[in-house]
Amino acid sequence: MSLPFWFEVFVMALNSGFGAALARSRNTPVFGTLFAGLLVGLGGGILRDMMLGTEPIAISNPVFFPACIASGVVGALLFSRIVAMPRPLLLLQGLVLGTLVTIGAQKALDLHAPAVSAIALGVVTATFGGMLADVMTGHRATLAKQAHWMASALTCGSAAFVLVSMTLGFYPAVIVGVAVSTVIRYLSVARNWPSPSWPKESQNATDN
Amino acid sequence: MSLPFWFEVFVMALNSGFGAALARSRNTPVFGTLFAGLLVGLGGGILRDMMLGTEPIAISNPVFFPACIASGVVGALLFSRIVAMPRPLLLLQGLVLGTLVTIGAQKALDLHAPAVSAIALGVVTATFGGMLADVMTGHRATLAKQAHWMASALTCGSAAFVLVSMTLGFYPAVIVGVAVSTVIRYLSVARNWPSPSWPKESQNATDN
Amino acid sequence: MSLPFWFEVFVMALNSGFGAALARSRNTPVFGTLFAGLLVGLGGGILRDMMLGTEPIAISNPVFFPACIASGVVGALLFSRIVAMPRPLLLLQGLVLGTLVTIGAQKALDLHAPAVSAIALGVVTATFGGMLADVMTGHRATLAKQAHWMASALTCGSAAFVLVSMTLGFYPAVIVGVAVSTVIRYLSVARNWPSPSWPKESQNATDN
Repeated sequence: MSLPFWFEVFVMALNSGFGAALARSRNTPVFGTLFAGLLVGLGGGILRDMMLGTEPIAISNPVFFPACIASGVVGALLFSRIVAMPRPLLLLQGLVLGTLVTIGAQKALDLHAPAVSAIALGVVTATFGGMLADVMTGHRATLAKQAHWMASALTCGSAAFVLVSMTLGFYPAVIVGVAVSTVIRYLSVARNWPSPSWPKESQNATDN
Repeated sequence: MSLPFWFEVFVMALNSGFGAALARSRNTPVFGTLFAGLLVGLGGGILRDMMLGTEPIAISNPVFFPACIASGVVGALLFSRIVAMPRPLLLLQGLVLGTLVTIGAQKALDLHAPAVSAIALGVVTATFGGMLADVMTGHRATLAKQAHWMASALTCGSAAFVLVSMTLGFYPAVIVGVAVSTVIRYLSVARNWPSPSWPKESQNATDN
Repeated sequence: MSLPFWFEVFVMALNSGFGAALARSRNTPVFGTLFAGLLVGLGGGILRDMMLGTEPIAISNPVFFPACIASGVVGALLFSRIVAMPRPLLLLQGLVLGTLVTIGAQKALDLHAPAVSAIALGVVTATFGGMLADVMTGHRATLAKQAHWMASALTCGSAAFVLVSMTLGFYPAVIVGVAVSTVIRYLSVARNWPSPSWPKESQNATDN
């Protein structure tokens, strides 16, 4: 069971566009921007496949690189509108990340990884490339910043996907997993929810 | 030959606790902290298994993630006491890192890696996750900082383990490898030894 | 088809020397410097082999680590002369990176990766280790900096190699790939060409 192949390519390419826009907003040169876009779009999926001991599909199939480069160029050219993150784009990014989580978790389940590893690999698929691109452009990873729900939203979505997948089946699980990730992520930004915090932690503490 | 399985899990979980404590002390949100704990606990071992072309045991076995998450929660809650690093905890961390070095080097030898690669993979097992977590939280990697013996202590321990393992056997090698790593690391902090330095290098040079 | 084995070792070791020199110039302790040198020399090739699903040759063959450590020691001792990058060394570094690009792209083609993945893996081979070492020493990756042609030069060289390799054969491709990478990189520094920039981008924008 899996989502249609072209859909997977489409979602990964969209993520490259977001990554390239962010990299360009950080004053990265042309090839560095496209490289960051490729990392964001493909890095998590490649790492997931490597961890599962299977050949990364983004390497063996020639569709992924050109799709992500094309989307990266568009993202970089429109970067100022993208990094401003108007609500529809925020929703789109939530959907993209939520879908990547379910793709990743499903591949892990298909390859007989235990449930807990599938949850983790879902999150890795959606976040690892972005983490590398943050770090490569000299920034603290979004995952490690006090901001809105991000790792938390995706972990909830990944866990929801795996639970529903093991009980109700694949398609309900996709809907639930994507919905949980997207809704939490979207609402956390739209309503300015802070990241879940440790007990007694000051929310005003400075980063770093 | 290898250490008992539960012992390996236990040591990796302890390392996650240290990692989560450090991440929380750097003002990382809840899921980011647990993610950093997982990276510190499991990242080095997963990379080692991937480099050896075998499926990472932390992915295929469902015990590692929950153990490291549980330990990460404890580490994050007690972070202020952990990052203060009183002497018994410093000793414990030395033992944990020393044990990880021997586990990593032994897996490499078991899979017929040459001795020099086994030494390197021992060090990778103990340090790679921490390096990623440092970088992800916006810090220079401990390995690349002028401070006390760290990479150096672990490299000595890994080399000692491999040498003794190829001559006297596994158990003496574990004792020697752990002892060398731990004693050098502990003494270097307790007695404030600087990192080994290049000839004529000023020890007062500022970092970065 | 491939370059002679000893030549591959030689080029990777030279790259380690450059990496160790740079790490030492950033005030990294002895073992951290050698570790950075190993990352720069071997990291890209190891990642490429892992992505291609084959055992990393730098792990399975015991020659690479000692060669890179030896070269790293030399690089670190002579660091002040190396980081000053006089023209002959700049040319040598261009040749090293250009050769690594062709080695990486060729391995990918040998293992039946599609052309576009081979181009990407050529660039990964030459740059990934340096990117990690930059990040580990607390710096923005060279790839993501506004400076001279770097990722761009190597991408052109990798694409040229793959195109010529698929038409005229291996040896002409090596010459063209190395020449394109090296000449662009060398000229971009010698004549102070800026990185290719996005339309209407200010070249005076500050980094980060």
